[in-house]
Amino acid sequence: MEMETEEKLERLEDGKKAGEKELTVEEIFESQEVPSWRSQLTIRSIFVSAALGFMFTFIVTKLNITTGVIPSLNVAAGLLGFFFIKLWTSVCEKFGWPHQPFNRQENTVIQTCVVAVSGIAFSSGYASYMLGMTKIIADQGPASANTANNVVTLNLGMMYGFLALISFVGLFSILSLRKIMIIDYKLIYPSGTATAYLINSFHTDKGAKLANKQIKTLSKWLAGSFVWAFFQWFFTSDNGCGFTAFPTFGPQAFARKFYFDFSSTYVGVGMITPYSINLSMLLGSIVSWGLMWPLIELHEGKWYPANLPPNNLSGIQGYRVFIAIAMILGDGLFQFIFVLCKSVYNLRKSKDKDVGGEPVVSYDDKRRTEYFLKDQIPVWVAVGGYITLAILSTICVPLLIFPSLKWYHIMIIYIVAPILAFCNSYGCGLTDWSLASTYGKLAIFVFGAWVGLDNGGIIAALAACGVMMSIVSTASDLMQDFKTGYLTLASPRSMFFSQVIGTMIGVALSPVVFWGFFYKAYPDLGKDGASNPAPFGALYRGIALLATQGLSALPKNCLKLCIGFFFFAILVNIIKQVMMHFKNKALKYLPSPIAMAVPFYLGGYYAIDMCIGSLYRYWRERNNKAEADAFVPAIASGLICGDSLWGMPASALSLMNAKPPMCMKFLSRDTNTKVDAFLNG
Amino acid sequence: MEMETEEKLERLEDGKKAGEKELTVEEIFESQEVPSWRSQLTIRSIFVSAALGFMFTFIVTKLNITTGVIPSLNVAAGLLGFFFIKLWTSVCEKFGWPHQPFNRQENTVIQTCVVAVSGIAFSSGYASYMLGMTKIIADQGPASANTANNVVTLNLGMMYGFLALISFVGLFSILSLRKIMIIDYKLIYPSGTATAYLINSFHTDKGAKLANKQIKTLSKWLAGSFVWAFFQWFFTSDNGCGFTAFPTFGPQAFARKFYFDFSSTYVGVGMITPYSINLSMLLGSIVSWGLMWPLIELHEGKWYPANLPPNNLSGIQGYRVFIAIAMILGDGLFQFIFVLCKSVYNLRKSKDKDVGGEPVVSYDDKRRTEYFLKDQIPVWVAVGGYITLAILSTICVPLLIFPSLKWYHIMIIYIVAPILAFCNSYGCGLTDWSLASTYGKLAIFVFGAWVGLDNGGIIAALAACGVMMSIVSTASDLMQDFKTGYLTLASPRSMFFSQVIGTMIGVALSPVVFWGFFYKAYPDLGKDGASNPAPFGALYRGIALLATQGLSALPKNCLKLCIGFFFFAILVNIIKQVMMHFKNKALKYLPSPIAMAVPFYLGGYYAIDMCIGSLYRYWRERNNKAEADAFVPAIASGLICGDSLWGMPASALSLMNAKPPMCMKFLSRDTNTKVDAFLNG
Repeated sequence: MEMETEEKLERLEDGKKAGEKELTVEEIFESQEVPSWRSQLTIRSIFVSAALGFMFTFIVTKLNITTGVIPSLNVAAGLLGFFFIKLWTSVCEKFGWPHQPFNRQENTVIQTCVVAVSGIAFSSGYASYMLGMTKIIADQGPASANTANNVVTLNLGMMYGFLALISFVGLFSILSLRKIMIIDYKLIYPSGTATAYLINSFHTDKGAKLANKQIKTLSKWLAGSFVWAFFQWFFTSDNGCGFTAFPTFGPQAFARKFYFDFSSTYVGVGMITPYSINLSMLLGSIVSWGLMWPLIELHEGKWYPANLPPNNLSGIQGYRVFIAIAMILGDGLFQFIFVLCKSVYNLRKSKDKDVGGEPVVSYDDKRRTEYFLKDQIPVWVAVGGYITLAILSTICVPLLIFPSLKWYHIMIIYIVAPILAFCNSYGCGLTDWSLASTYGKLAIFVFGAWVGLDNGGIIAALAACGVMMSIVSTASDLMQDFKTGYLTLASPRSMFFSQVIGTMIGVALSPVVFWGFFYKAYPDLGKDGASNPAPFGALYRGIALLATQGLSALPKNCLKLCIGFFFFAILVNIIKQVMMHFKNKALKYLPSPIAMAVPFYLGGYYAIDMCIGSLYRYWRERNNKAEADAFVPAIASGLICGDSLWGMPASALSLMNAKPPMCMKFLSRDTNTKVDAFLNG
Repeated sequence: MEMETEEKLERLEDGKKAGEKELTVEEIFESQEVPSWRSQLTIRSIFVSAALGFMFTFIVTKLNITTGVIPSLNVAAGLLGFFFIKLWTSVCEKFGWPHQPFNRQENTVIQTCVVAVSGIAFSSGYASYMLGMTKIIADQGPASANTANNVVTLNLGMMYGFLALISFVGLFSILSLRKIMIIDYKLIYPSGTATAYLINSFHTDKGAKLANKQIKTLSKWLAGSFVWAFFQWFFTSDNGCGFTAFPTFGPQAFARKFYFDFSSTYVGVGMITPYSINLSMLLGSIVSWGLMWPLIELHEGKWYPANLPPNNLSGIQGYRVFIAIAMILGDGLFQFIFVLCKSVYNLRKSKDKDVGGEPVVSYDDKRRTEYFLKDQIPVWVAVGGYITLAILSTICVPLLIFPSLKWYHIMIIYIVAPILAFCNSYGCGLTDWSLASTYGKLAIFVFGAWVGLDNGGIIAALAACGVMMSIVSTASDLMQDFKTGYLTLASPRSMFFSQVIGTMIGVALSPVVFWGFFYKAYPDLGKDGASNPAPFGALYRGIALLATQGLSALPKNCLKLCIGFFFFAILVNIIKQVMMHFKNKALKYLPSPIAMAVPFYLGGYYAIDMCIGSLYRYWRERNNKAEADAFVPAIASGLICGDSLWGMPASALSLMNAKPPMCMKFLSRDTNTKVDAFLNG
């Protein structure tokens, strides 16, 4: 409806003044000089980043040890960064102090730095793999695994050492591939795009008409999405309550994870990811949760023991996790090798031609590409940095910290990690899901089985998980930030340094925050039923324990299926390349294996969110293509940012232990009758 | 509303392209000849009405004796009428049989007739006041009231006699006031307006551009509203389940009936009623449920006995019902007398000038007014008919059917009834709520107290309720239909005859359907806990029993408050008239007492629905006034009609005893913890 209004308006305006052309984003910003990468990294930005980083580290750590659910904090970082620097420049102006003007590049740098800090708080694993090593968790498990070489007593020195050794490697892992992922593949990175939208809108001058309309749209949807998230909160007093438990398609479909979960984030993400990705995800969830899992569950008791807890990788969950990983690896590996071959081929053919480069069309794209390629980071820095740091940690970690993890184990991780980091960044660029913890679980499985229980396999597996997760999650965070930087003309070099600084701050803060505020303050941390249950501690240790049983721990036929889906992913890619070569039109009907794989593990609910986003965009585009192109990304960004911003007050409420007052519950008719009888006495 | 719309659109379109003028509704229909009132009443339309009437009588009776909740069937009547006649004319065309063309006037006539039939099924009270007279209900009450003269054994003859005697009077009660209510007061009658919109859209030729856009909008929102109602159904397996139990503003507010109940009907109604009415309702709910009732409840145990059942009129419910009625009566009485005085004054001043007539501006209004005034029904017919029928029933009812109700009781009802009928129709025109059953309860109270238990007061009171309810509900139905007729150029005379025929069909069908299909088929009808509990039977008898205690049954201070609010309503009207005389601008900030009164009884939830409708319209108008005027009424009609249409399948499901599979329940955090513990064993 709104569109019809706008359409009419536009047509009226078009009719009125043909001369006045609407400016694109970069045309609006053209007059603003882009500062050098050094000037983008200001002292004040590092100061603000550190302050915000401390706050976020505190929040993330606290949430980690209570619920284990952490909201995305990117948008809050961008917004708060903007707020504080703006406050500072206003104060300076008032008192006539000299100060640098504030621009969107600096804003992006702050955002990147804060994300890096809070990223460490997550990947340091003090509520997951690290906690899983401790005695308090081991005591809850079987005595056979509660041996001296399978338990570690945490101390501050060791925490600092390990974190410092593993945290920086990830930054270098796929640094050189940024051009391929951002410019050649044009990956979306929905959250990064949304953040860039928001940052651009903060810094747009008044006067640009279309831009102002877009900003107004963005703010409206942002506010709506925020209020909606706030509203949802009230009805979510416990697990299984609230809109996220809404069986929109009935209870049977809900049990198979087919429902609309009312997440405005993923509706927004669906609006900016391509239709093909969203449909691939939907296909993936139908194939897996609609077909394969029900079929496999028919063999419960034969293929795997009956009545396992839902998270046990020996049961149906094993199929979900490992088949998803296999498919992602198949797709990712193909892309990785294909890119490598193509680069080599192109380099040999001609020095001028860009790798897979398509003709750059719009002014915005041209300008963004120009700035993105301006401040290069030489390949030797990336590769050299990676190798140096990898060697350092290969030597130090076994020697000083975890002796059960041998140097060759770590070496193998560092050899394989870049490929997995690429897979994860690639998938994240398409679907907005970073599956870092899934790769971590894979590492647990492999190294747990390899080392074995008797040789301290649990500790080795959990440490390997830490090394792997750190690389994989840092790599996708960095690429997400590069996308934001690309869209705000921030220099890749300043972004990279900002990440390095952020990682340093994170490494400095994370252990001490955990140690001082939580680990020493709550001696029962990690105990089931305690005020700080840190649920993932026991989960990770459980996986490690399972892994020490080796391949036999996997449910039956799981490995065969994994191999099948691994090659299926490669096959699809080969067919795709062949069709592309022959310019076959059916190409667009081929699904993306990586997008199909994500719901294998997670379930179909957010594929449904995203398809609803797609549907909305389709409807807008059918009504008015130009309008849709101008406003749908703004709407999507508003939805993503609003939901994400709610993460701040939600965390605050959680820290203050304020619980929602109500539960919106969904009961079957019979259960409801019982409950009514119970409640009426 | 209507007039402004057309006018503005014209102006807008004029501005754009002078040549291509958008046509108004009546300009589109101009080429279609409006048939004479006799030709509007066809044999086929009566035939279809009778068939649909039978079906609806069945549905209404069944729902009456099970849940007591009856959906509005107007829209279904209009739609099915259209469908069947269209089917018939298509068949005729195919076989080359001669047939009259089908037009919107005939459609309106069918709709009116069907509504009249199902209206009788409701006002015949076989599940409320009539059932309350029977032994099966009396046995559930105290023995003191279970005396021979307070119990009646139903029989078919007596049911036919009573229904025939009381059902036709209402048609004549405020027949002569139709011009004042429809043309002078321009009352909205939201449901009637929506139905007219739908009927007009059925009969619009393709080719009219704006009209087609409006119809498209209407259909879209109708479909949406229907699907939404369907979706809601699944989550409503029991009382207290589903979206109607959604404590949108928290459980405390919900307990005070402040919540959004997700009814698309009332959101739609709010879009077409004036802002001032919706705000008056909101004010009324805040004053009553937010302030007065909580204050009065502080005196529970002093002003009225503690721990009464929620529906007992001796408790807080008494204040709600009687203060609402007092305020409505104050407002209505003022309007009634004011209109009378003005008419007399104007008649004496000049013979030419219209009563309160304002200059007719738009083409549509002119044409509609012309047709509405064309086929007059002489005042002597209306007045004569009313007096004749009233005398007939004054003589026959006490003599033949209910001896405990004396002739002078009935005479008094017939003297007072037209004023109450006016009040109800006036309020219904403003707010879309017909409070017929509330007036019925008033009658129970007055005559129960007057006659007394020893003289068969319960039967007298329930019979008086029947007489009163029949008049009041018929009058507002008829006026609602007149609004539809006004907007579709149907002749008031054909509408009136259609109502008469419908009433005849209803009188013929209703008793036999109840008797044959339900009363004889279910001997435990009306018993608490039976499959057909007919909950209103016991409720009505309970009120009657209470009434026989006289004024002392009223809670303390209730009468004083009633008198106060009665005069408050009159005062507000006097101030309004004075301000109007001096053209004071603050006039529009004066609330409408009748609109304030409705939520006194019902609570604020639908005032909130309506204000959301208002808000939507406000937003649209701020964006683009001309567009809003053109499309908001279509949207509103779509919302009202879609929700109403769902009534049909919902009734079918209910008849088949198909219950929704799930319950969406809202529990406090503590209760939820208890329930979870209970469910987990």
